Amino acid sequence: MEKKNLLVGQSGGPTAVINSSLYGVVSEGRIHEEIGHVYGMVNGIEGFLNDTILDFDEALPGEELEGLKYTPGAYLGSCRYKLPESLEDPVYPQLFRKFQELNIGWFFYIGGNDSMDTVSKLSRYAASVGSDIRVIGEPKTIDNDLVHTDHTPGFGSAAKYVAATVREIAIDASVYEKKSVTIVEIMGRHAGWLTAASVLARKYTGDNPLLIYLPETAFDTEAFLQKVEAAFEKNCNVVVCVSEGIHDAKGTFICEYDNSVGTDTFGHKMLAGCGKYLENLVRSRLGVKARSVELNVSQRCSASLLSATDQQEAVQAGRYGVQAALKGETGKMVSFVRCEDPDGGYRMECGLEDVNAICNMEKTVPLDWIRDDSDVTEEFIKYARPLIQGRAELPLGEDGLPVVVYRKFK
Amino acid sequence: MEKKNLLVGQSGGPTAVINSSLYGVVSEGRIHEEIGHVYGMVNGIEGFLNDTILDFDEALPGEELEGLKYTPGAYLGSCRYKLPESLEDPVYPQLFRKFQELNIGWFFYIGGNDSMDTVSKLSRYAASVGSDIRVIGEPKTIDNDLVHTDHTPGFGSAAKYVAATVREIAIDASVYEKKSVTIVEIMGRHAGWLTAASVLARKYTGDNPLLIYLPETAFDTEAFLQKVEAAFEKNCNVVVCVSEGIHDAKGTFICEYDNSVGTDTFGHKMLAGCGKYLENLVRSRLGVKARSVELNVSQRCSASLLSATDQQEAVQAGRYGVQAALKGETGKMVSFVRCEDPDGGYRMECGLEDVNAICNMEKTVPLDWIRDDSDVTEEFIKYARPLIQGRAELPLGEDGLPVVVYRKFK
Repeated sequence: MEKKNLLVGQSGGPTAVINSSLYGVVSEGRIHEEIGHVYGMVNGIEGFLNDTILDFDEALPGEELEGLKYTPGAYLGSCRYKLPESLEDPVYPQLFRKFQELNIGWFFYIGGNDSMDTVSKLSRYAASVGSDIRVIGEPKTIDNDLVHTDHTPGFGSAAKYVAATVREIAIDASVYEKKSVTIVEIMGRHAGWLTAASVLARKYTGDNPLLIYLPETAFDTEAFLQKVEAAFEKNCNVVVCVSEGIHDAKGTFICEYDNSVGTDTFGHKMLAGCGKYLENLVRSRLGVKARSVELNVSQRCSASLLSATDQQEAVQAGRYGVQAALKGETGKMVSFVRCEDPDGGYRMECGLEDVNAICNMEKTVPLDWIRDDSDVTEEFIKYARPLIQGRAELPLGEDGLPVVVYRKFK
Repeated sequence: MEKKNLLVGQSGGPTAVINSSLYGVVSEGRIHEEIGHVYGMVNGIEGFLNDTILDFDEALPGEELEGLKYTPGAYLGSCRYKLPESLEDPVYPQLFRKFQELNIGWFFYIGGNDSMDTVSKLSRYAASVGSDIRVIGEPKTIDNDLVHTDHTPGFGSAAKYVAATVREIAIDASVYEKKSVTIVEIMGRHAGWLTAASVLARKYTGDNPLLIYLPETAFDTEAFLQKVEAAFEKNCNVVVCVSEGIHDAKGTFICEYDNSVGTDTFGHKMLAGCGKYLENLVRSRLGVKARSVELNVSQRCSASLLSATDQQEAVQAGRYGVQAALKGETGKMVSFVRCEDPDGGYRMECGLEDVNAICNMEKTVPLDWIRDDSDVTEEFIKYARPLIQGRAELPLGEDGLPVVVYRKFK
């Protein structure tokens, strides 16, 4: 039997478990007889076009591969490169020539909906030229906005980070007996899944965060201020979680209202996020102590509160994709199907979906899971809670910090 | 033997282990025959003046007390209340009347140098009126700026959070092969200990963060830009860690240069931190991709990367203070003395220092531990590394998040 080689790449923004999916693909690739080398493309399709690849047997031999499961970011590096719409473009034969030179039989791309667009184009091009290369998409995004899948790898850990961090911020905010408002700005431009996950921070009914605003509904500034005032009845320290993408009824992002703020000393427009904008609004209109916290990149790259469920599922998705490709599947994305156990518990199975129905689509939070434009319902909690369960123990190094693996030579 | 009661309070900003010190005081208090009730003052001295106290046997009976070791923030609440300079002020007899009503024999105040000022005044007043109440200070601050102690409880966990988070941010920044600068703004207005701890994020020589700026030396904007340019030789993704308190040679805080930015839509001055200022500076002057991350309150309230060393030492300090007070000590702060083990390892012992020599003083990073105004030396690393060692396992609740304890009724 002539062996073929496996190629895997990562694309788009990092998550806490994108390397767990990589681990799944590589470790599964290693155990199949028909697979020769397992290659990784460095910096995605863009890097591959410049011949930056590595062989996992050299880069992470044997047990060293395990480190991927605890390493956030994108081990292989990433890119933001969109393949041309026209399959007549010369980049396609160029790519497939490279695939052929490396004797690639299977290609896996780990990413969000832009990356699924790449999977769609490459699998369609392969079909059009009669190539037998199998192309499979491995889902990844903290935004949880891919369609035709119950959820995405990366969301559970990001949701756990958001919930745990908002709980800590609420505890921090509660130490003084003086009216205060803390605005927490959370990632998610169009889909509010991650912001909604802040509800999981509540320890009891009526606990902070008292207000939660998603980009799925229009943000009304005056109604917001009234709700903050009303929230003081419950707690003198009010925590509000907002998605970075909140916008008013006209569709203008709230953060854009800060454009008026002025220019910096170099004549450049100074842009702040909606959290900073609302902090100033609350301070000036309500006359109370206000501060804002932008969770920033840590919500996508922190491994300190990895969800064991998310990590295991990411590995599972990686493995499942390889098994499917070996069975001849192509042009598919690995999806997650939620099954109910006889005891009512949570269970997830992998499936396959046509990648053409997924790329360039966006799944937002159902409107009936949003309450009064400023909270989420029990249905959301029931959906999200299982995804943040369990602890993935991070091995500590001699330096006292969690161990990570990284590419030694670029 | 007539029993007396123990009273403990917390003051100033929260840390990840201020409740571990509280645990140490309360658990030690429970095992001594001569101590009756163990009371906590809610919201520090200020709350106590309004009679807000709790009895730990009711609030956290038996095993429930253990939860304090894993709960960040300040369980008892806090205050920022400075006692009058004059011991003739009527607030002193008022306080001591309350102490007497509650039959208090020992009082412990957990906090930073402002709180040590309270300990100093109360112990001096006690002496002046012949009261036998013993007053002991328990150190606490992420800033590590108390004198006459090797380090402070709270610093190790904050340092571990900073080091681990900066490492993750550096990993996140490294995924694209395109020049970028990430500015990380870290707490510490006058003392750069916590910013210095970002050096512990380096995985190898020449790794990020490539530049580290403390408030102990003057910040030179032009030299900074030149060093960023030079850093691109080592890594196309440059991470710079700056203390919030960096200032120029004239003593003007760098963040103050942002005052020129303008006003928000309500006519209020829009203030950004020095990280945002430097982000804009880099983008406009060097023409490269730039972003800034303010670590914000999580660096003082996150328990997700608790240092086991810090946690154990905080408990130890709490216990030691109670033992000292029972031996008759008063007007002292528990200090940490670093001892070298025969094998060269790290070992810490508790000591006592005169609180009058500690309050209102500030310990900064020694200048000879700062290299070229933009890095720290091996001496600092040798000092700080032992303090971030070990993992404190956070118990997870059914909700998938770390368990915390909190006051049910205010």
